[in-house]
Amino acid sequence: MAYMTDILYFDNAATTAMSKQALETYVSVATNYMGNPSALHKEGLKAKALLQEKRESIAQHLGVQASTLTFTSGATEANALVLNNLIWAPQSGHAVLSNIEHPSMKEHARILRQLGWSLTFLNAPHGFVNPEDVQAALTEKTRFVGCMLVNNVVGSIQNVGTLVSLVREYQKKSNRKIHFHTDAVQALGKIPFSLTELGVDSASFSAHKFKGPQGVGLLYNIDPALQPLSRGGNQENGMRPGTENLAGIAAMGTALDEAFAHLEENSQRVEKINHFLRSELSCLPILSPSEHASPYILTISVKPLPSEVFTRMLYDRGFCVSSGSACSNNAKQKGESVLTSMLVRSDEAKSSVRLSFGYDTTFAEAESLASTIKTLYRELT
Amino acid sequence: MAYMTDILYFDNAATTAMSKQALETYVSVATNYMGNPSALHKEGLKAKALLQEKRESIAQHLGVQASTLTFTSGATEANALVLNNLIWAPQSGHAVLSNIEHPSMKEHARILRQLGWSLTFLNAPHGFVNPEDVQAALTEKTRFVGCMLVNNVVGSIQNVGTLVSLVREYQKKSNRKIHFHTDAVQALGKIPFSLTELGVDSASFSAHKFKGPQGVGLLYNIDPALQPLSRGGNQENGMRPGTENLAGIAAMGTALDEAFAHLEENSQRVEKINHFLRSELSCLPILSPSEHASPYILTISVKPLPSEVFTRMLYDRGFCVSSGSACSNNAKQKGESVLTSMLVRSDEAKSSVRLSFGYDTTFAEAESLASTIKTLYRELT
Repeated sequence: MAYMTDILYFDNAATTAMSKQALETYVSVATNYMGNPSALHKEGLKAKALLQEKRESIAQHLGVQASTLTFTSGATEANALVLNNLIWAPQSGHAVLSNIEHPSMKEHARILRQLGWSLTFLNAPHGFVNPEDVQAALTEKTRFVGCMLVNNVVGSIQNVGTLVSLVREYQKKSNRKIHFHTDAVQALGKIPFSLTELGVDSASFSAHKFKGPQGVGLLYNIDPALQPLSRGGNQENGMRPGTENLAGIAAMGTALDEAFAHLEENSQRVEKINHFLRSELSCLPILSPSEHASPYILTISVKPLPSEVFTRMLYDRGFCVSSGSACSNNAKQKGESVLTSMLVRSDEAKSSVRLSFGYDTTFAEAESLASTIKTLYRELT
Repeated sequence: MAYMTDILYFDNAATTAMSKQALETYVSVATNYMGNPSALHKEGLKAKALLQEKRESIAQHLGVQASTLTFTSGATEANALVLNNLIWAPQSGHAVLSNIEHPSMKEHARILRQLGWSLTFLNAPHGFVNPEDVQAALTEKTRFVGCMLVNNVVGSIQNVGTLVSLVREYQKKSNRKIHFHTDAVQALGKIPFSLTELGVDSASFSAHKFKGPQGVGLLYNIDPALQPLSRGGNQENGMRPGTENLAGIAAMGTALDEAFAHLEENSQRVEKINHFLRSELSCLPILSPSEHASPYILTISVKPLPSEVFTRMLYDRGFCVSSGSACSNNAKQKGESVLTSMLVRSDEAKSSVRLSFGYDTTFAEAESLASTIKTLYRELT
């Protein structure tokens, strides 16, 4: 593959290429399964059995019941499914979201406000949402709290377990259900966590972040009140109608099997790469926290150079990095606003460059990146 | 492939196996494109270019502007995207839907009614929605009319062009926009039609119905007021955020290329199979209309035998057929209610068996199906 020789890919938080094994699973299922999992004939039952087998093996990795999992087209849909329950709620209420959420969470704010919801957005000073701030934000009208597990801009691991405990305590007193949702897209297959220990009501995941296929994701949910986003057939217990993407789901299962088989080993290797880059680039401000952060994301600042100038020069040299979340065309502004809410200085935020690593990032690639960044920075400043 | 020898697949209206070429495209894109189409580096731009190339080639097949197309996870999502605009509308109004719509359309009724919408459901006597009934249903409060292009239960082709004209005439007088949506899932790649001639505002499609991948679909829309279902990044012009399923979209493009290259030839071959089965099974009530119907769907009645008994016996003999739409676990009831709204007698509806053909259905397979149905029917009655 020609691109492997001239492309150095450091944008794994945006998307990862499908693994060979996951692609093999996709091909095998697409070739050998022809029925609709909802059909009652042999091919349908065969497809349904595979769907259930995959749901169970994925549930096992997550340490949850298979019945809590709904396959979606990705985390954006999973987040929308949860947040649309607020839009559809017979009465408006109050919702608490962190200011560092992915746009697929935050962008619901406008319509929720239109519908009479009040929203509290919490900053994440130095990368982390403060438990005290969550506690202070809760009111009798609070029906929803959303906080991601691993931030996609700097990699900070939020203290979701503590936030959930505080919400549950408040809930007990007020005797009103508060749904806690976590977008765990950057966590799955990268850092160890337990959904049941965190205590969240729901969580969203996307296969293409861990070398599974694009267009496949997962919603974990234990809140019986949750309503589906689309209506139609009874697929996914009615939670997500539409013919299941069987080959894609199976491929996600394979990618997750691989990720979990090598979780520790991958993490250690990526940590070394992360530490190496931190030390090589110590002349620059490092925006990712040094503790409680995923090793897979390292965001630096190249101030006073605007990030789009610097990243373009890296692109020209064959490096794929990001000046913000790739999930938006005006990503830079959004990345900046996330950084600002982390109390990153504006001049540093405007110069942010995100380096994100994958299971196949090599030390040699990291060395090449470090020396190119250093040379470029010296030349330009 | 072992299943080819012992499975005779007559459930192509539920799903079709991915074509060899479409799967090859999937593998090639998954292998050679590693970037997120929203990323600005080389791999991102390469992915974005392919996405646009595919959008344009698909638009060309449909005879529409590329900018009118939004890639989704399937027709269920495309239908939900359109219908959620009613749910989110600041004011409730009146909507007209045919009684023969797919559950992914009809199942929105409950929530719409909860939100104060009034709904008129139109029957389709002998398979077809009456233009007069649409005309009579329109009121000053009507904001939406939905009617599928090809019915999934019997294959009747609805006179959507005429229905749209009537709606547009009314709209001119009342000076209020009425959105016309057509679910064209069973039409694309099977019967010729022109979206611009039909004059609809929006239409939905699903790749796995024409040998593309599951989990990929398409929304055509020219109504500038339409709002997205999910929120987040600006993918698909903001209409459908979430990282694009590039390999899946490209594979859908290939499947559509193939379908259009052989549209006429496939149609003629399937028509012969359809006519052959109609004549072989002429001892049974044929529930599919003999005119203005897709040749790809033939629904018969095996009265007085319940359809689930008869279909199970066909399953045991290796045939995949359907007792209703496969898109729902309680499909039989739903198929029955569609048939009832077509004025099919209740005893015939309870005994319905849908045979649906694909591009690769052979005459020999149809002969085997006809003789098995006849033998079984004789033995059981």
